[in-house]
Amino acid sequence: MTSDSLYTVAVIGGTGPQGKGLGYRFAKAGHDIVLGSRAAEKAEAVAAEVTERLAGAAGAGQVTGKANEDAVTAADVVLLAVPYDGHDELVASLPLAGKTVISCVNPLAFDKRGAHGRVVNGGEGSAAESAAELQPEAVVVGAFHNVSAVGLWGEEEFLDEDVIVVGDSVEGKQVAIDLAASVTGRPGVDGGKLRLARVLEPFTAVLISINRKYKVHSGIRVTGLDQGH
Amino acid sequence: MTSDSLYTVAVIGGTGPQGKGLGYRFAKAGHDIVLGSRAAEKAEAVAAEVTERLAGAAGAGQVTGKANEDAVTAADVVLLAVPYDGHDELVASLPLAGKTVISCVNPLAFDKRGAHGRVVNGGEGSAAESAAELQPEAVVVGAFHNVSAVGLWGEEEFLDEDVIVVGDSVEGKQVAIDLAASVTGRPGVDGGKLRLARVLEPFTAVLISINRKYKVHSGIRVTGLDQGH
Repeated sequence: MTSDSLYTVAVIGGTGPQGKGLGYRFAKAGHDIVLGSRAAEKAEAVAAEVTERLAGAAGAGQVTGKANEDAVTAADVVLLAVPYDGHDELVASLPLAGKTVISCVNPLAFDKRGAHGRVVNGGEGSAAESAAELQPEAVVVGAFHNVSAVGLWGEEEFLDEDVIVVGDSVEGKQVAIDLAASVTGRPGVDGGKLRLARVLEPFTAVLISINRKYKVHSGIRVTGLDQGH
Repeated sequence: MTSDSLYTVAVIGGTGPQGKGLGYRFAKAGHDIVLGSRAAEKAEAVAAEVTERLAGAAGAGQVTGKANEDAVTAADVVLLAVPYDGHDELVASLPLAGKTVISCVNPLAFDKRGAHGRVVNGGEGSAAESAAELQPEAVVVGAFHNVSAVGLWGEEEFLDEDVIVVGDSVEGKQVAIDLAASVTGRPGVDGGKLRLARVLEPFTAVLISINRKYKVHSGIRVTGLDQGH
């Protein structure tokens, strides 16, 4: 960890592999997690599973489960880890005003030629930008698009990857940069403005192609950062 | 090097920093390079500069300079390292039929909020796909989008990055995968179909943002590849 900031994070889509895995990693680093799902019972069951996994982890945060709207209300940071199908309707329905919202939503499509990015708003949009438009009183950033769910739930202390964070709010990005250390052991990398989520979201299609070809769970790392100051 | 294949590579845009740097690296690894420019004299001058840089490099290939069209005619592999402005007209004008064409063209735009990808064909296109449409008898792949020109011309034996290669032809991709070893010391990474150039091209905008923020020359590395077989 490189930051002392501890957050209460609602994970919308917290019962899916990406949300569950990120919630586990954040909790292991001391953040309190509220897994959200459409049905509170489902969220509670997965929260119990994550809590069991954390047994004996020193300094771990609390993991609970609630219905999505209650999860958001209980948190100051909201991670959107939902499928792109139905994304806009769900985001519009949640009480996100005043929250820091981290989107790791990947608008992808699959056909016989493999995975590829879905075109959002004629190429001038992304899931993260849609969330920002739908919730103008939320601070929306994009991050955690490219981390492997398998790795998140796996045994390695940290993933050998970087988390690239994009957004138009420095303070909002800092939250995701802090949380990234839970996953990678080092802060997230500031990748620029929110519109660059247009690149990070479909980049996952490249990693899926690599995974299929090489039978691995790939990620990306930013090289050259240690040249700086 | 992981391959014994040696190519004659025409570098269109060979007098720009990316083209010159890639030509230098390819020649250092034994490939013959024909730098191309609109004016033969300019290409010849840069070829002389690269040749001087290669003095004493054991096993280096020949580096010559020609006008673009003559460079293409002299080569079996053509690297497109040109600005996106004027790209389509230039590509349409070159005798590329039957050639393996590697595009590292990045359609980027810059405004006060930084670098971002230009929308090609309503979000359903890329420079590489445009080249493939304009030259249906060429084999077009995308690669080398994200390598830093500063690093290419620098002193390090190999760059600590990966070259991701996309394309619809396995044979075409193999050429770029081979050539990547000149730059990184290991083969390029097969990143899937040509349409995924839509992701690799604008990813350079993320790296430019990182470079500005952290004052570095960043690149990307694919993690997890050593898990495979």
